[in-house]
This record gives sequence, structure tokens and C-alpha cells, in this order.
Amino acid sequence: MEYSRRGFLTAVGASGGAGALMATMGALGLAPTAEAASRTKFIPPQPSDFTLTGRATKKVVILGAGVAGLATAYELGKAGYDCTILEALDRVGGRNWTIRGGDRITELDGSTQVTRFSDGIYMNAGPARLAQWMVTMDYCRELGVELEVFTNSNAQAYIFNAAAGMTRPVTWRTAKADVYGYISELLATATDGGALDAKLAAQDKERLLTFLRGFGAIGTKANGYAYTGGERRGYSVDPGAGEQPGTVLGPVPSLSEVLASGVGQRFSFELGYDQAMLMFQPVGGMDAIPKAFAAAIGRHKIMLRSNVTRITDLPDGVEVEYQDKNGKTRSVKADFCVAAMPPHILAKTPHNLGPDVQAALATPTVTSSGKIGLEYRSRWWETDENIYGGITNTDLDLSVVWYPSYGYGGRRGLIIGYYNNGSNQDSYAALPHAQREKRAVEQGMKIHGPKYRDELATSVSVSWRRQPYIEGAWVGWPSRTGAYQLLNRPAGHVHFAGDWLSHMIAWQAGALESARKTVTELHQRVLTH
Amino acid sequence: MEYSRRGFLTAVGASGGAGALMATMGALGLAPTAEAASRTKFIPPQPSDFTLTGRATKKVVILGAGVAGLATAYELGKAGYDCTILEALDRVGGRNWTIRGGDRITELDGSTQVTRFSDGIYMNAGPARLAQWMVTMDYCRELGVELEVFTNSNAQAYIFNAAAGMTRPVTWRTAKADVYGYISELLATATDGGALDAKLAAQDKERLLTFLRGFGAIGTKANGYAYTGGERRGYSVDPGAGEQPGTVLGPVPSLSEVLASGVGQRFSFELGYDQAMLMFQPVGGMDAIPKAFAAAIGRHKIMLRSNVTRITDLPDGVEVEYQDKNGKTRSVKADFCVAAMPPHILAKTPHNLGPDVQAALATPTVTSSGKIGLEYRSRWWETDENIYGGITNTDLDLSVVWYPSYGYGGRRGLIIGYYNNGSNQDSYAALPHAQREKRAVEQGMKIHGPKYRDELATSVSVSWRRQPYIEGAWVGWPSRTGAYQLLNRPAGHVHFAGDWLSHMIAWQAGALESARKTVTELHQRVLTH
Repeated sequence: MEYSRRGFLTAVGASGGAGALMATMGALGLAPTAEAASRTKFIPPQPSDFTLTGRATKKVVILGAGVAGLATAYELGKAGYDCTILEALDRVGGRNWTIRGGDRITELDGSTQVTRFSDGIYMNAGPARLAQWMVTMDYCRELGVELEVFTNSNAQAYIFNAAAGMTRPVTWRTAKADVYGYISELLATATDGGALDAKLAAQDKERLLTFLRGFGAIGTKANGYAYTGGERRGYSVDPGAGEQPGTVLGPVPSLSEVLASGVGQRFSFELGYDQAMLMFQPVGGMDAIPKAFAAAIGRHKIMLRSNVTRITDLPDGVEVEYQDKNGKTRSVKADFCVAAMPPHILAKTPHNLGPDVQAALATPTVTSSGKIGLEYRSRWWETDENIYGGITNTDLDLSVVWYPSYGYGGRRGLIIGYYNNGSNQDSYAALPHAQREKRAVEQGMKIHGPKYRDELATSVSVSWRRQPYIEGAWVGWPSRTGAYQLLNRPAGHVHFAGDWLSHMIAWQAGALESARKTVTELHQRVLTH
Repeated sequence: MEYSRRGFLTAVGASGGAGALMATMGALGLAPTAEAASRTKFIPPQPSDFTLTGRATKKVVILGAGVAGLATAYELGKAGYDCTILEALDRVGGRNWTIRGGDRITELDGSTQVTRFSDGIYMNAGPARLAQWMVTMDYCRELGVELEVFTNSNAQAYIFNAAAGMTRPVTWRTAKADVYGYISELLATATDGGALDAKLAAQDKERLLTFLRGFGAIGTKANGYAYTGGERRGYSVDPGAGEQPGTVLGPVPSLSEVLASGVGQRFSFELGYDQAMLMFQPVGGMDAIPKAFAAAIGRHKIMLRSNVTRITDLPDGVEVEYQDKNGKTRSVKADFCVAAMPPHILAKTPHNLGPDVQAALATPTVTSSGKIGLEYRSRWWETDENIYGGITNTDLDLSVVWYPSYGYGGRRGLIIGYYNNGSNQDSYAALPHAQREKRAVEQGMKIHGPKYRDELATSVSVSWRRQPYIEGAWVGWPSRTGAYQLLNRPAGHVHFAGDWLSHMIAWQAGALESARKTVTELHQRVLTH
């Protein structure tokens, strides 16, 4: 991305290949961004790959009907591979789990919640948002999954840093007005005073001051570039008809108060490559993606409630033993296996892949994460506070409050009352559900007051550590060498796939990219050996 | 909004009434924002207002079935007023106009476009977005109009300032990374160097530096707080599976280049109270609002193709003469009239309301604005550039490019190829439609390359100055005293309503608030006289 002809030419000279490539693209009038083209180049296996080479398709057993397992079966299926998926749960999707009324949530200790959500209410317990640049968007297009905006940031939602002494939440819009206002005042003062002359030529200074005047909505030089509030903060009485110009929200806190509040530290969230708006979600629930995969693969190829109990690499293939839905031990032989289960679950599964593989599977650390879904009898956040979607960010143990990105203006709605990780999540997970709800509501009342308790209809919580056959939200690697590299290669006839083998851990896109990599490697192996 | 207890108590002490009110609200645990409650208090007229006072309902003739006229009839209708709306066009909504395939667009000179949009493609020629705090959201809820996000800002869309020498557009995300990075570097340098010690105590400095490190993603003090790029800019090769960590987009332009490009000047747009995300639109087209109003009012009360030719205030009411759909001159007598037409059209309509009213109606200045809708055979902005909605902002004469907020992942889509005002709009309006399209496409190719021309299927343009019975996009007042105040009061039995009589000109919310004000005043008059 070049800002000027000078920058452009400098780039070509300085950075060689990449710069030259960009220059060529520019000359050809191609897309100014190479991002869409920059995903891992992937060519799905095709039937003609076999007919042209005279080779036969192979049988592949896939362990896990999560997103990686489903995508593997889907892509291999395009070329006619005979795929069978073994899935321990009674549903597809793995962590991609949408909970609706009537669903049962049983934790490792046997404690069970039966969901009493109203019709049309759902909760995405796992992944809930897609970035535009992620390959997940392409799969939604290919599979016919309808998309809508996931409201990842909203000027009307709040920031609340209780530990910093804030007595009430502030809206993102007010926080931005104040922080941008004061930093603009400060930088304009320093710039105009000559403190940055070593870094800024005269023309730079002039341009910077012009920018800061607008960015901070600050006063002129004659006014000391002072920030004194303004309409960006919002209004206590909105502009209206006739003689109602509106009353701008005040009073404006001091610079020192704004800094002490720490609200500005929240702004970085929406600047990240993965979290920046716009983000998206499938209409009707995230599980539209695994359901569409399953339909495309063929439901008969997916064996639900089939728990893998042993993986045996053989000289000419692989054998997988599992307990079927009736509790009976069965086994399936195949030419290849793709193990698309979480590494810490694989590490507990007997296999003959050797001690290095076993050590590697036990290497990543498991992260705790979970959510509570609070169904309310009314959409008071919309009617009373003008918050239509978005996220309130806090330093409370609930971490965030998500307002729903669907059903605007309707009767009922579902708030995510916490989505927290690590020790905050562990302390909620240790409680029975009723206590999780009580604690979440008490915390949320600090932001929204008594209606947060009084309007509550029902709730459901998911702690990923306590979910059978999953037992964790996502994993982290101490390094990307050694174990990570080992498992990114096949062990005998067993290939691995999952977000945990990508640089997009905890994103479905990571699982999808990993599946594509594994499919490509497995297919190459079949075609060349 | 208070950031700290100290700030809070200061506020109560300093600002009296408002501060005390906020303190009371806090103590009561009420909503932390008073915004939802802060709209003009409005109690719709009710049948009991008449039964309890023994008065009879009245007949009201309303001029114009735009949003103000419709809301007036709707609210008066709740109490049983006998309302008739006269509308010159053959549709309701006025400037709220959604264009679909088959629709005809005839301009003042008789030139006509017949729309050839595909099924499911529409263009909101007038208003296209709602802010969450606007009363329009409440009417959508009340009328059952389904809402979805209008994508007013998108990190993946572009900024392009050609006059500043930019050779290619940059994404908003890249521009923000660079501008925030460099201003953070500058302000950290000045702060650490002591240049702002007069404004910052030691603790403030420390907090500010912490903020800037995160906000700008800049280096440590040892690294001179330097901005050197990073993942927020985006990637030239996205993170992927296995050994693909991704390649961060580079090279990073210099501070001087970033300032010269002027990209930062675009950031203020999304900070405005009216334009900050999230914003919303009715599903299926903005005209869902007037259609829902019309259905609630009763279609038989709305006389389409009925052009008002004379307004006569009478001692005991009002008489309105109009030309009906057959060209026949008719008249309607009523107790009151609400004139909800644009002021410059009223100014051309014979009346006996006196020279002051006539002068007032001629006072506001009319603004030019218009859009072109470009239907494409493919959604190349999504497939090739990962842009799912949002706005590209430019200094070209097209001003902005809007990517559609509906139909994501579908086959075809509609881009707004220009939405411009003033002289930019006038220069397009002066051209026949084919030339408008040609010019818009030539400009847009500077951003998107040849596909912007090659994939085009069909287009439609609307120039509000050239639309019969409307003849302008919105108006401006030289001041809010005099003429504005005069027309905010009734002239005899004629009341006025419209966004032009509010502090939210060019927003439907202005029309709705004005209608509410007029309804309240008219009803009070009926009940008390």
C-alpha cells in the first residue's frame, strides 16, 4: 500500500521482490490489495487427478467432525475419496456449537443443563465471528451459508474499568472523544512548541496540526489547541425538532481523569487484523457451517457417538478402533487416517505412533474459556440504552458483555454475559450453573443496573474445559519448532489437522487452512507413491 | 459519564442540576446513559383524550406523503383524527425512495431511466442509514420493520486521496495503523522528553506512555518509541497452516509520507454522533418504513398523484385545492392542514398565508445531492478484495463508493458508485445518465481497476435537484432565528412539518421528531380551544 509516488518508488527499490511484485500489479491495474489472493493457494483434489494418472481413490478415516475434520472430508470427497468420519459427540461441529431451546449441556462431572431458550434464540458457544479476510468466508459462499454482520464494536456500547475507580461505564464514543481530544491537544501543543522539530519538517508540522484539529475536535492555536468536549461525546438531550438543538453530554473530565480511567487501553482491540470490523456471522447460528459441510459430505459418512479408542498404524494403512453408539467396540481399516481431534484428547488415545508423537501431542498447553448466554424477556439494551449489538469491555471477571447481532427490535434477546478466559473462566467453571448465573448477573448489574437481574428469563453456560471429548477451548504452543513441526507432518499413515496446527489458533479459519494443507499433502502422497 | 469518583463528585458540585440528576440516577441504579430517555418526550394522541374532554376529533389534510407527512397521519390517527394525505408522486416516502428493477426514474426535463436491476437488487436513493439513538429505530420496532446493520465503516475498505499524490488506495486498517503508530511515536517522544511537563504530572506521563505503547503498537523507550509497522497494517500473505506465519504488509511509509497523504483527515467521519457505527437499515430496502406507515394509516387515506395547487386558510379551517390523478382540479376542506412538503416547493404553491410566511419558505438554501447505483454481475469486491460492505472515501468527484450491506456472498450486488453533494453532484446531474455512468466508472477504476468497468451490468442515477415535486436533497438555514422560528409555529390553521424544521436536517429522524412536535401542538390546540 503506497501513499505517494515517492513512497512507491522507494518501495520498489528497497524491498526487491515484494516491491517489484506490487509495482507489476499496479501496472497491470490489478486489485490494489493482494490479500484475497494471498491466502494459501489451494487446488481441491479432482476426479480427473485419478482418471488422468490411472490411480485409484483411497479410503480415509477421519477422526473428529469438527471444522477441520469436516473440511478434510469435504475436500477429499470432491475427488471421490471414500471418507468416514468418526465423531464422539452426537452432533457435528466440535467447538462450533450453537445451542438452542431443548439442547442438553452435560459436563464432565455429569451435571446437566437443559436449555429453555425461546424459539429463535440461540447462543454460539464457541466461534462466533468471522473476519472478512478469512477463508471461512469463502466456504460460506461455496456452501451457501448466508452471512450477516457480527457487531464486534459499537460506539454506543460501554467501557468499564472498575479497578481504575470508574463509578459508571462510559460509551466507546465518549471515551474516544475524550482520549482523542486530549492526545490531540497534547501533541498539537508539543508540535507547535517546537519539541518535535527533530522529527518534523515545517510542512509536516503544518499537516500534523491540521490532522489533530480534526481528529481531536480541538481548538485553534489561539485557544491553546484545547479539548473542551463536543458532540462526539454524545448528548444528554438529543437534537430534536423546533427549538431543541440538543444538549451535549457533560461535564468533560480532566485529562488526568481520562488517563487514570484507562479507557484508552481498550481501543487496541478493534485495530487487530483479526478483530477489526466488519466481522460476520452465519444467519441463524454458527453451526450453519458444519451443517452445510455435513450435508455436502453426506450424513451417512459421519458416524456420531463413535468414540475413538485406539489408532494403529499398519504397514499398508491404518486401523482405528472405536466404541459405537451402542457401546460396542468396532474397528475400521483405511489407507490413511486424518486425526482432527484436539491434541490433548489425541494424547489420551492409545496409538502406536511412537514416543515422539506422543510427547508432541502433550506439548501444547490448554486454554480455558467459556460463555454464559442470558435470555431476557425484553431487549432493554435496545429500548432503554440504544445499544443495538456490540460489545461492552470491562475489567470485571465477566470480561465482556455481548449484545446480540440478530433479532434487532424483536421481543426477546440473548446477551453473552461473560466470555472470559484463563483464571476468570476457571473460577466460573468451578461453580454449578446456577451460581455462575448469579455471579455473572451481579457483575453485569454494575454496568446495567437491576434490570440485568429483573428481566432475566433463563440462561445457559458452557465451560470448554468441562465439555466431554473437547476438554479445552484452544491450545498454545511454547514454540513453533519441534513438536509443532513434527505434527505438521504425517506419522506413518496418520496425518493431523486442526486449528492447533496453524498460525490462526482458536479461529475456524485455522482449522480450515490446516485441513487444506493436510488434504493437499495426502493427495500428493496418493498421486505420487 | 464519569470516569472516576473524584470526577463524579466534582461534576455534582460544579454543574448543579444536570450533575445532581446524574448522581440521583446513579444512586437509583438506573441506566448509566440517559440517551434513550433523552429524546423529545412524546405522548401520542389517544381516543380517550376526546372521550374524557367531550370534544370531537377533527379533520386534517396533510400535504405530502414523505416521512413527516406519514408520521403525522399515523400519530393523529391513533386518536381518531380524520386524516387525508395528498401526495404528488405515485408512491409514498418522498425522499425515502428505494429503486428496484422495473421502476421508472423521470427527471424534470422528462428524461427517463427504466431500471433493469436483477431480482433482489435495490438502491436506497435517499436515506440509507439509521443511527441507533434516532427515533427512527423506535418507529421500526413499533411498525415491525426488520433491521440489519448498515456497514458505515469497514477496516477493509479504502481511503484514496488522489490530489495528495497517492498512487493507490490504502485500506482503512493500514491507514489507521500508520497514523496511530506515528502520532503515538511523536507524542511518546515529546512526553518522555519533558516537553509536556506543564500539562502532565509524573503519573499522567506514565499512564499516557502506557496508552501510547498499545494504541500505536510502538517500540519501547529503548527503541525510541519507534513505529515500525506490524500486523494491524494487514498482511501481504495471510497467516495460514503449518509453516505459514504470514507476511506483514510492507514497506512502511515514512512519517512525512503518511502526513502528506492526508489519510488521517478521513478518520473523523466515524467519530460523529450521527455517523458512528453501528448503523442500521431496514431489511429489503429503506422504503419498508413508509410502506409500513402507509399500511398502518390505511392506503385509502393517501391520495397519490394529487398535486397541491393552492392552500387557503379560512376563518374556520383550511381549504386545499389539488389536481387529482386524472388531471381534474379538486379541493378538500379540513379543520387543519399540516404542510409536510419541502419549503422550496411550498414557496412555489399559491397560498394566502401572508408575505412573512412566503419569505420564510423561500429562506432556506437547497442542497444538491445524488447517487448512482451500479449493479455488477459478480461481487468482485468480496471475492477479490475481501470487502464485505463498508465505504471507500476519496477526494475524487464521486466522493465515496459504498459496498452493499446486504446479499453477502451472493451472485450479484449493487455498489453506490457516487454519493456526492454540491458542485460534484451538480456536474454529474448536468449529464445524461449514460454519461454519468461513464464518468463514475472512470473514476471508480482508479480504485478498483478494469473490473469496475468490465463487470458492470446496469446502473441507475438519481439527482435530487431534478426530481419532480422534490427538487433538492435537503435544505440549510442561514440562521435558526426568524424564518425557522416562524415556520415552527402554525400560520392560521396550517402547521408545518419536516426535517427542515428540526436540528436533524437530512435525517428521517428530523422529519419524525418534527412530525411529533406538530402533532403535539395541533392536538393541544384542538383540546384546549
